[in-house]
Amino acid sequence: MICKRSSHQPELTMNASRRHFLAAAAAPSALRAAAPPAAELYNKLGGILKQPVLKKHLFKSPVIIESLELLRLDNQFLCRVRSSAGAEGISVAHSTMKTLWPIFFDNLQPFFLGKDARELDLILEKVFVYGFNFRFNGISLGIPLATIEFAILDMLGRLAAKPVGELIGEIHNPEVGLYMATEWREKPVEESIRLIRDAVAEYDIHALKIKIGGLMFMTADMYAEGPKGRTEAIIPLVRKTFGDSMALYADANGFYTVPEAVRVGRLLEQYKYRYFEEPVMFDHLEDIRQVAQALALPIANGEQDYSFYGFRWLLAHGGLD
Amino acid sequence: MICKRSSHQPELTMNASRRHFLAAAAAPSALRAAAPPAAELYNKLGGILKQPVLKKHLFKSPVIIESLELLRLDNQFLCRVRSSAGAEGISVAHSTMKTLWPIFFDNLQPFFLGKDARELDLILEKVFVYGFNFRFNGISLGIPLATIEFAILDMLGRLAAKPVGELIGEIHNPEVGLYMATEWREKPVEESIRLIRDAVAEYDIHALKIKIGGLMFMTADMYAEGPKGRTEAIIPLVRKTFGDSMALYADANGFYTVPEAVRVGRLLEQYKYRYFEEPVMFDHLEDIRQVAQALALPIANGEQDYSFYGFRWLLAHGGLD
Repeated sequence: MICKRSSHQPELTMNASRRHFLAAAAAPSALRAAAPPAAELYNKLGGILKQPVLKKHLFKSPVIIESLELLRLDNQFLCRVRSSAGAEGISVAHSTMKTLWPIFFDNLQPFFLGKDARELDLILEKVFVYGFNFRFNGISLGIPLATIEFAILDMLGRLAAKPVGELIGEIHNPEVGLYMATEWREKPVEESIRLIRDAVAEYDIHALKIKIGGLMFMTADMYAEGPKGRTEAIIPLVRKTFGDSMALYADANGFYTVPEAVRVGRLLEQYKYRYFEEPVMFDHLEDIRQVAQALALPIANGEQDYSFYGFRWLLAHGGLD
Repeated sequence: MICKRSSHQPELTMNASRRHFLAAAAAPSALRAAAPPAAELYNKLGGILKQPVLKKHLFKSPVIIESLELLRLDNQFLCRVRSSAGAEGISVAHSTMKTLWPIFFDNLQPFFLGKDARELDLILEKVFVYGFNFRFNGISLGIPLATIEFAILDMLGRLAAKPVGELIGEIHNPEVGLYMATEWREKPVEESIRLIRDAVAEYDIHALKIKIGGLMFMTADMYAEGPKGRTEAIIPLVRKTFGDSMALYADANGFYTVPEAVRVGRLLEQYKYRYFEEPVMFDHLEDIRQVAQALALPIANGEQDYSFYGFRWLLAHGGLD
């Protein structure tokens, strides 16, 4: 299981108002007729994309990237960046770095060396062109690139004596909630519930994400399907087990077709789950929109899709909440 | 430069009739009103997707994959597959395997071992789920996966004593033409022309693809733009240099915006180029469609986009020729 930051407060009223706000901005089902057309939303999103992200004015002199290292201990990786003036930043890499480290060295490191870290906006735009890097779309480029970006932001934050959030925006919530993401989709209902309960107890968690659907990613058996009827049983049982005050989320990792996702989504609504993550495959944009428009439950997406195209389309067409 | 197989014959009449055929099937500009709606084309494409690809009936007994190796000499890789009965297949990997070999071993090899190669259709479907492999969308998964697939098809072809084409379809053209793809986008016009002419002469080539636009993938300089005015000069000059009998293609590798792509496309039409590859970024589906609908020149796409979603959308919306 993984503990993740969540911007959701653990009150059950939260999503309803968030949904309401987004409904007005991005055209889901009930308000479709009143919502601005996609072209207008495209213009708005285009304007947002053009705004600079990093606050360059916080840094008066160049911060030249002199070295960019990947430090390995078994299958754990740290990234360390150093400036020519001796500033240092560190980031922790995701576990897939054990597979993706050659992309760090072949496709990314050479581009960053010698550049002024204050140009991070432009660097991140242009690194996609370097070496045809845009061809490595997905986590293959995303993980090593994010690792480098975090190390650079850490270095810049230390230089400016500010948290990273203040380098790129305003900090609205000095404290953020945590949710626990559990992952026992292949186990029978009773065993899943026991494992989820143990995990929740260990961390005194008030928000919980469970996995639903039969995505058998952990086995090479092509015919594996997972316990039959698990989804239909576990959705009400998790609510019953943890009570109304627990904030619940569900993640299908793209498993369902549109009609199945809508059917399962209605069950999630009935038991007051707060969002449904990746109900259908992450890059099937029209399918995601169909699910979003059929359900009042907010739809989450974007763990895999790093393209501006996908986000822009989904936001402009009422496919994301 | 690279010599590639091309299904295009070197007669200048070819694309016009191909375009005509596709216009009737997939709804580009002039015939849009008469074309079937996207939903109908989706059904048709869905039906095609459901058809089996590998002719399993050619193999009476199981072909169990016993080993799957990657053989390395410096930065060159061969893939060798062997069956439990001693059959063998070999494929040559693309040069990016020097960066992607851990994906071969971590994400793919374990899934293939012990499986019956006659199940290739199902294997290729399910391997995307194994280890969340769909997250590695793009060439990171595509190159190692295609390398394995080719080795398996080579093994099956040897077993059936048939060329690979006959394992998955009918061979319509026993001989296919070659085109040469040149790549000197960063060089001034005169030098580009000299290099292209030398390459063409060396191989006695009758079909040629040039690179246009200013995509500076070979340099870490964020401000590099390439020779000014090169595209406008080289398009007519290549036609003039090689004459009307040379089949010409152009590839922008996604460099242009829609209006720029349409402007450059009209110049390509004027000088009787036969297709325009990746005029805009490969996954910007709506932009690709806009370019396709504004030009009579056929649009090529798909070197980077491996998703069924993208192809299906483009085919059903008249975005590809």
